[in-house]
Amino acid sequence: MVPGSYQRMVLASRPRGAVTPANFRLETVTVPALQDGELLVRNHYLSLDPYMRGRMSAAKSYAASQALDQTMIGGTVGEVVASRHAGFAVGDAVVGVLGWAEMAVTDGAQLRKVDASKLPLSAYLGAVGMPGMAAWYGLNRIIAPKVGETVVVSAASGAVGSVVGQLARLQGCRVVGIAGGPAKCAYVVDELGFDACIDYKAGKLEADLAAATPDGIDGIFENVGGATLDAALARSNAFGRVALCGLIGGFGGADMAIHNARLLLINRLTVQGFIVTEHMDLWDQGLAQLAELVASGQVKYRETVAHGLAAAPDAFIGLLQGFNFGKQLVKLI
Amino acid sequence: MVPGSYQRMVLASRPRGAVTPANFRLETVTVPALQDGELLVRNHYLSLDPYMRGRMSAAKSYAASQALDQTMIGGTVGEVVASRHAGFAVGDAVVGVLGWAEMAVTDGAQLRKVDASKLPLSAYLGAVGMPGMAAWYGLNRIIAPKVGETVVVSAASGAVGSVVGQLARLQGCRVVGIAGGPAKCAYVVDELGFDACIDYKAGKLEADLAAATPDGIDGIFENVGGATLDAALARSNAFGRVALCGLIGGFGGADMAIHNARLLLINRLTVQGFIVTEHMDLWDQGLAQLAELVASGQVKYRETVAHGLAAAPDAFIGLLQGFNFGKQLVKLI
Repeated sequence: MVPGSYQRMVLASRPRGAVTPANFRLETVTVPALQDGELLVRNHYLSLDPYMRGRMSAAKSYAASQALDQTMIGGTVGEVVASRHAGFAVGDAVVGVLGWAEMAVTDGAQLRKVDASKLPLSAYLGAVGMPGMAAWYGLNRIIAPKVGETVVVSAASGAVGSVVGQLARLQGCRVVGIAGGPAKCAYVVDELGFDACIDYKAGKLEADLAAATPDGIDGIFENVGGATLDAALARSNAFGRVALCGLIGGFGGADMAIHNARLLLINRLTVQGFIVTEHMDLWDQGLAQLAELVASGQVKYRETVAHGLAAAPDAFIGLLQGFNFGKQLVKLI
Repeated sequence: MVPGSYQRMVLASRPRGAVTPANFRLETVTVPALQDGELLVRNHYLSLDPYMRGRMSAAKSYAASQALDQTMIGGTVGEVVASRHAGFAVGDAVVGVLGWAEMAVTDGAQLRKVDASKLPLSAYLGAVGMPGMAAWYGLNRIIAPKVGETVVVSAASGAVGSVVGQLARLQGCRVVGIAGGPAKCAYVVDELGFDACIDYKAGKLEADLAAATPDGIDGIFENVGGATLDAALARSNAFGRVALCGLIGGFGGADMAIHNARLLLINRLTVQGFIVTEHMDLWDQGLAQLAELVASGQVKYRETVAHGLAAAPDAFIGLLQGFNFGKQLVKLI
């Protein structure tokens, strides 16, 4: 039974500084009739990710700004509930970018079928989805660590960082996380198996990082930027590599400089920014590996789940402030 | 006729802030008797280079600090005046790192014979020496520009920058230099053939750079750092490459931050620091190309020559302040 209408969340206004709930507006939409080649998806989970903050601004970024009064961009996983598309049948589980919405009509162009019997649907938005691929790409294609090297990961308990560290451990690296608060740090070490985790809120980042990286740092997977990146660069070994995946630390307007750029020269570092959706040719390979590792329990993940689309703005604001623990999702059904 | 003594310049004290003449001390040394396997070189030219400033400090760098009371490190070109080494004969022209000294006894380990009939000896310290190789490596191995791309070079009239720009032009790039003052800029455009040159002293770096790079910037060859690097990063295209060769702008204690690190992510840039002496495997190939291009007039260079070892400290201080025009040398004979 397909409902006649669904809810969606649109961008009502662009944030000035911090994001507020008033930047969003919930709307009710009538489900349109399907045309040939279209299908209707009922989203089970919406993924909330830091990149969305960039889209909310009008400033130049690597992607077009989110248009005002349109459905907020967002990754989703759900099931096909009606189809006039030869490639999709009712009941298919599909991952896509259908936005902050309970349902969506699509031509299927960017939709990927997934195996709902192998892993929980939500995993395809996390460790076996875009965040997992970001971890896989940055670690394997930029840092490319050797056995015995030290890799440092910021936002270590998050959807990306948690996978980075576990993959690096599996490759024989010493892995040091940076996270906010003792609970996240305990999780990172005790459950994810990192060698150490620095609580940046403890106020002695440099000293703690030095103690945890006695042989220096060979690879930095950066999700935060600012003080954590500066501190890690100061511990870098010659020919270190920095995979620049995100700079969530600056979304609130914080200074997002690399204060001692001379370290890049002194240590002959390579710093590379990347966007994982520009490397789709590697997704089949990477996601297959990640699916195996998650299914076998070698890569673990944690989720923070908000319930209902109306809860998405607060959950997103919390994500930007680090209130989530692991992958931040919104359950829609 | 070999003299019985020669002069050398030692590091008398480490600079606190700016380098001063008092940091150096001239000494007279007796020429020692040669042992088997040794040779005596009379240096014709000493090369003055920004990297020497780093060596004068005790702070961690990519190389050991210059020891106090020892001959200042420096590249030299000269001729063999006595030899008990089977590989070198009196009259051989040799390039090496024999320091701020009129003569030196050496075992020849890091000495390279050059063809004094093909090019002026001094060229082997500039366009066909270490600065030329730094240009060659950073441009070809890090920036790797495609035809039609835009390359920006700071310190464009200098020993490294002038070669970078000319090589990039020969590879079909649009080349924009950054230099200090109208005379250097005129030289860069009129004699070296750059498409444009920005005078950073004119006080409107951002606007001038925007006007000179209508298609954005694909490659940055950075010799200075600070404001020029920030300005160039702000004009970067997606997937731009930054070869970080030097940060001479910070030697006087100036801020050496990358202020908007978010640009590295937004534009998916790669920033790579390098030291050309760590890539000796490429020198034969690179220097052979550079020698051909200089001999045929396709790569031009300019020199500023100080006379006599006693003049070296002032010449070096001038180099750090940008008073030189092209390669800074000290003529010793």
